[in-house]
Amino acid sequence: MTTPGEEMHDLVRRLYPLCRSITGDGVRATLDIVGELIPLTVHEVPTGTQVLDWTVPQEWNIRDAYVADSAGRRVVDFAASSLHVLGYSVPVSATLPLAELRPRLHTLPEHPSWVPYRTSYYRPDWGFCLSQDALDALPEGEYEVRIDSTLADGHLTYAEHVVPGRTADEVIVSCHVCHPSLANDNLAGVAVAAFLARALAAQQPYHTYRFIFAPGTIGAITWLARNAERVSGGPAAAGGPGKVRHGLVLACAGDRGRLTYKKSRRGDAEIDRVMRYVLAASERPHRIDEFTPYGYDERQYCSPGFDLGVGSLSRTPYAAYPEYHTSADDPDFVSPEAMEDTLAVCREAFRVLDRNRRYVNLSPRGEPQLGRRGLYDALGGRSDTRQAQLAMLWVLSLSDGGHALLDVAERSGLPFDAVAAAADALHGAGLIGA
Amino acid sequence: MTTPGEEMHDLVRRLYPLCRSITGDGVRATLDIVGELIPLTVHEVPTGTQVLDWTVPQEWNIRDAYVADSAGRRVVDFAASSLHVLGYSVPVSATLPLAELRPRLHTLPEHPSWVPYRTSYYRPDWGFCLSQDALDALPEGEYEVRIDSTLADGHLTYAEHVVPGRTADEVIVSCHVCHPSLANDNLAGVAVAAFLARALAAQQPYHTYRFIFAPGTIGAITWLARNAERVSGGPAAAGGPGKVRHGLVLACAGDRGRLTYKKSRRGDAEIDRVMRYVLAASERPHRIDEFTPYGYDERQYCSPGFDLGVGSLSRTPYAAYPEYHTSADDPDFVSPEAMEDTLAVCREAFRVLDRNRRYVNLSPRGEPQLGRRGLYDALGGRSDTRQAQLAMLWVLSLSDGGHALLDVAERSGLPFDAVAAAADALHGAGLIGA
Amino acid sequence: MTTPGEEMHDLVRRLYPLCRSITGDGVRATLDIVGELIPLTVHEVPTGTQVLDWTVPQEWNIRDAYVADSAGRRVVDFAASSLHVLGYSVPVSATLPLAELRPRLHTLPEHPSWVPYRTSYYRPDWGFCLSQDALDALPEGEYEVRIDSTLADGHLTYAEHVVPGRTADEVIVSCHVCHPSLANDNLAGVAVAAFLARALAAQQPYHTYRFIFAPGTIGAITWLARNAERVSGGPAAAGGPGKVRHGLVLACAGDRGRLTYKKSRRGDAEIDRVMRYVLAASERPHRIDEFTPYGYDERQYCSPGFDLGVGSLSRTPYAAYPEYHTSADDPDFVSPEAMEDTLAVCREAFRVLDRNRRYVNLSPRGEPQLGRRGLYDALGGRSDTRQAQLAMLWVLSLSDGGHALLDVAERSGLPFDAVAAAADALHGAGLIGA
Repeated sequence: MTTPGEEMHDLVRRLYPLCRSITGDGVRATLDIVGELIPLTVHEVPTGTQVLDWTVPQEWNIRDAYVADSAGRRVVDFAASSLHVLGYSVPVSATLPLAELRPRLHTLPEHPSWVPYRTSYYRPDWGFCLSQDALDALPEGEYEVRIDSTLADGHLTYAEHVVPGRTADEVIVSCHVCHPSLANDNLAGVAVAAFLARALAAQQPYHTYRFIFAPGTIGAITWLARNAERVSGGPAAAGGPGKVRHGLVLACAGDRGRLTYKKSRRGDAEIDRVMRYVLAASERPHRIDEFTPYGYDERQYCSPGFDLGVGSLSRTPYAAYPEYHTSADDPDFVSPEAMEDTLAVCREAFRVLDRNRRYVNLSPRGEPQLGRRGLYDALGGRSDTRQAQLAMLWVLSLSDGGHALLDVAERSGLPFDAVAAAADALHGAGLIGA
Repeated sequence: MTTPGEEMHDLVRRLYPLCRSITGDGVRATLDIVGELIPLTVHEVPTGTQVLDWTVPQEWNIRDAYVADSAGRRVVDFAASSLHVLGYSVPVSATLPLAELRPRLHTLPEHPSWVPYRTSYYRPDWGFCLSQDALDALPEGEYEVRIDSTLADGHLTYAEHVVPGRTADEVIVSCHVCHPSLANDNLAGVAVAAFLARALAAQQPYHTYRFIFAPGTIGAITWLARNAERVSGGPAAAGGPGKVRHGLVLACAGDRGRLTYKKSRRGDAEIDRVMRYVLAASERPHRIDEFTPYGYDERQYCSPGFDLGVGSLSRTPYAAYPEYHTSADDPDFVSPEAMEDTLAVCREAFRVLDRNRRYVNLSPRGEPQLGRRGLYDALGGRSDTRQAQLAMLWVLSLSDGGHALLDVAERSGLPFDAVAAAADALHGAGLIGA
Repeated sequence: MTTPGEEMHDLVRRLYPLCRSITGDGVRATLDIVGELIPLTVHEVPTGTQVLDWTVPQEWNIRDAYVADSAGRRVVDFAASSLHVLGYSVPVSATLPLAELRPRLHTLPEHPSWVPYRTSYYRPDWGFCLSQDALDALPEGEYEVRIDSTLADGHLTYAEHVVPGRTADEVIVSCHVCHPSLANDNLAGVAVAAFLARALAAQQPYHTYRFIFAPGTIGAITWLARNAERVSGGPAAAGGPGKVRHGLVLACAGDRGRLTYKKSRRGDAEIDRVMRYVLAASERPHRIDEFTPYGYDERQYCSPGFDLGVGSLSRTPYAAYPEYHTSADDPDFVSPEAMEDTLAVCREAFRVLDRNRRYVNLSPRGEPQLGRRGLYDALGGRSDTRQAQLAMLWVLSLSDGGHALLDVAERSGLPFDAVAAAADALHGAGLIGA
């Protein structure tokens, strides 16, 4: 019997070896595998397309790369790990002495056994990454270097998966798919997103949930450029997708640290309040961080021209663990239990978000006579009768158009579920209107 | 020489034996006795009258009720305490074995010597309340039960007393008169209200104070139904009573616990700020509770369709003492000193409320020259000259239409009385306008 | 080599002996000396001029004053200290016994060796101030008293110095010049103001800085009366001086206590936020006080009809040190280092105030591509690259018209200078607009 955590971990292990980048076949292969779990709509955007302030770059692909010593032995080998080559390296084929090669060999002296992750997307460059120990072991002498890569007009690739809801209004869940062999950053996020999509589909959500698997920065910018109208307040096209109301960026979703929620730029968006509530109510150890314009693609979704209510959920946040952007962020660094826990919090949060409606008390002068309507009796057999009764009084008291059910839960101290159940009962009795 | 506290306590003792309910002669007898202290206008509202979402129920009266053993000895006797019968019991006359009777015998196992208070207003039922000890002493066998009650079309009774003020705008003081032999809940509230009315009349208040003695819930709802226009923002009829601006529900006003003020639903209504200020300034131990839609008739006054600035003053609050709704809430449970203390706080609060005016500085550019107008000299002989002078500067500084005198007192840290005296002096000198 | 602190201290020593009052030649002599440092425009306002609620009083001048014993020996002598005469004393020439003189002899029993400072501006009176020790040493007997003063129609004198800025909008810096031989109150303020004006002129400020040297209360009121339109919201005359936007009252600027900033009446005026930020960022020990309508001329600038954003900077505040308004507030009571420190804080604060602009992100959808514009490279060689890059992202994120650079600094936790430099770089690249 496999747990969802183990299934997610298997997915991470399977995706791990692929050499992803902001464009190229590594992304496509990744989306193919994710697409086995949830159907994906894959978008290919040509090189040169103007996207907001940016331009889609040339597509990068790589077949092989190595540094070989004079004996022809590969001392640094892309085949062993996609991290060994500087991302977006231009093709090279040369033989040169170690002294000349050294400036192009990136290491982490403070973690001598780890290989760093480095890229050079927008400045043509080439290089290799290796451990300090490996570098130290290289004798002086001539080395053959070869990077069999191509940089050519092609496409930027991203994918979407939509879980339709009862309303066309959307919640976006976004994760980046541009990092090569790094597990927590962000294969764990990809895995949690895929399983979250499956779970949501099973429960017929209120909102429409759109999952975005895209390269970091340029991918999110591309998505925003192509969805700008419905994101930024213009009218949604009739029959087309709805407005984007809320969102969550998932990243670093699988390490063993406590959960971290980083608020949207607005700071008090509904997703911010929901996440804060759910994390506090669950009594999980967690932290809530203020927005910063640094991190993952919340940077783009929250840029002031969009200013979406999009927060970011991680475990240990961006750049706050030593394994970040190194070969130590491998599948063992993430755990099935941690991914399952992240998934559970997402599901709880979206469950609250989906039910967090505003009602209006239709009998607002004095209390309505609940007994006459059987609202006490209906609940009389339950052990939580008094809580249910209190919840109804609270919903009646605060249903003035200005309070949503989460406000009621927070002000009353009652569980959100009890408040939502009371609202359902009152709505059924015609005492509150949506 | 009798103190006001002792007089209030005597009133509690005198009212205690009467069998009050939400309708019936017990309420009328209670209002007759209160009417000896302050003149009351008694309202009789016929059974069947629609009041907001409710309907005035049939009137309940009771002459006798008992459980007698086979020897004819009354083992439970309404004549001994009005608590012994389930409130609103339908008439019954029967003989039945203890085993069948037992489900209709209500006790408090956790306080075996106390008799509980129970009612069944809107579901026809009958029963008796007795101590667990008494129940345990009953041998098996046949018992005669008799409840000589009537449930018939009649009236719901409530009363008002008005202390006219310089303005027709009203402060309501409301207390419930539907509980049978219970002292703190709410005979102490009735007694404090009656003596408060007498005290206010002697000092010619600014506001008009309307005292409402009404059965809980249905009585307050009836009052609101009949006064809805002037409560909820419609224009007050010319020559008729004014708008309802503020209010206070008095309940549990006599136990030995510290004072508790429960805020109105608004949370920052003027009465909320006044009570908080007066309780803090008096240095009495006290607590301030947030509004909850549970408790006494503030539930009705603060329902969202009215949302009046009505708070609730108690000592130990609603349901927070073990004697609550039991025979242990008897006249010994309340003390003359506690009632006198509650009365004193009400008087202090209304004294502040009555003087808490907003002024406008008529010489707002630079400080006016106070010396030229004798405003320093006028106060020069007093030991609190410096405080009086500071108070004048504060009133001048904050009299911009947006601050009332209580704001001035809170921001300056000066006593409200000093601030009000400064405002009087400045008003007399024509430096501030009302 | 003389430090600015020593130069300021020299100025205090030079001004100290002069007998200043709210009118008269002492003020003129003081302004003459200040005018040697910075050019002053001196205003003479005739006795009887109506200024707001006040009237410019008669001008007071004094040549000599003493109490002499029967041997002709001066036991109290104005020539020794200007504090010895009650300010605004009417002329007197008489001989009278000590018993009759005693009520006119003011002392400080709690500090028997100090001479108090006393005045009677608006009630004709005369008297002397001396130490309790000196009074105790006086034998009974006849004393000759003579005050050679004049009270006659003349003028009230105040002066202005303007440091022109790139905008006509003004920051006023105000200090009182009416106190006789008192060093901290307020010669230190006068000295700091004069040196601040010199420093500002050297750095070509953004705002226009207007320095006001005026007698306390009546002087500030006179200035306000003559500048009311551009202070209180009316349009500034074309080509004339600009609107008054911010201000600072300088007083008690030289004692050895920690700095104290007293907020404007608004409490959140820009100057309040700037001073709070600068004091906190500098890590100086300091305190921030709420506004009170007592103190120095912030009372007038912040009166509700003007309600200017004018705070007050002192070291130990108004009346909070025992030497206050006594002969112990002499030049030794103030230190060069303290005045230099006060000066430094003013300069830092105005540097922030001058740069605290609001920008609008001209590329607000997604992040603009900084690398393409060389904004990373431009800063790449600096050790604070990462801070500069973060600062650019923060400025872009918050430049929505609603946030000024100080908001960016506070929210980001980055130094204001880094934020302002980032704004300059982004503005230069055309990414943000003013």
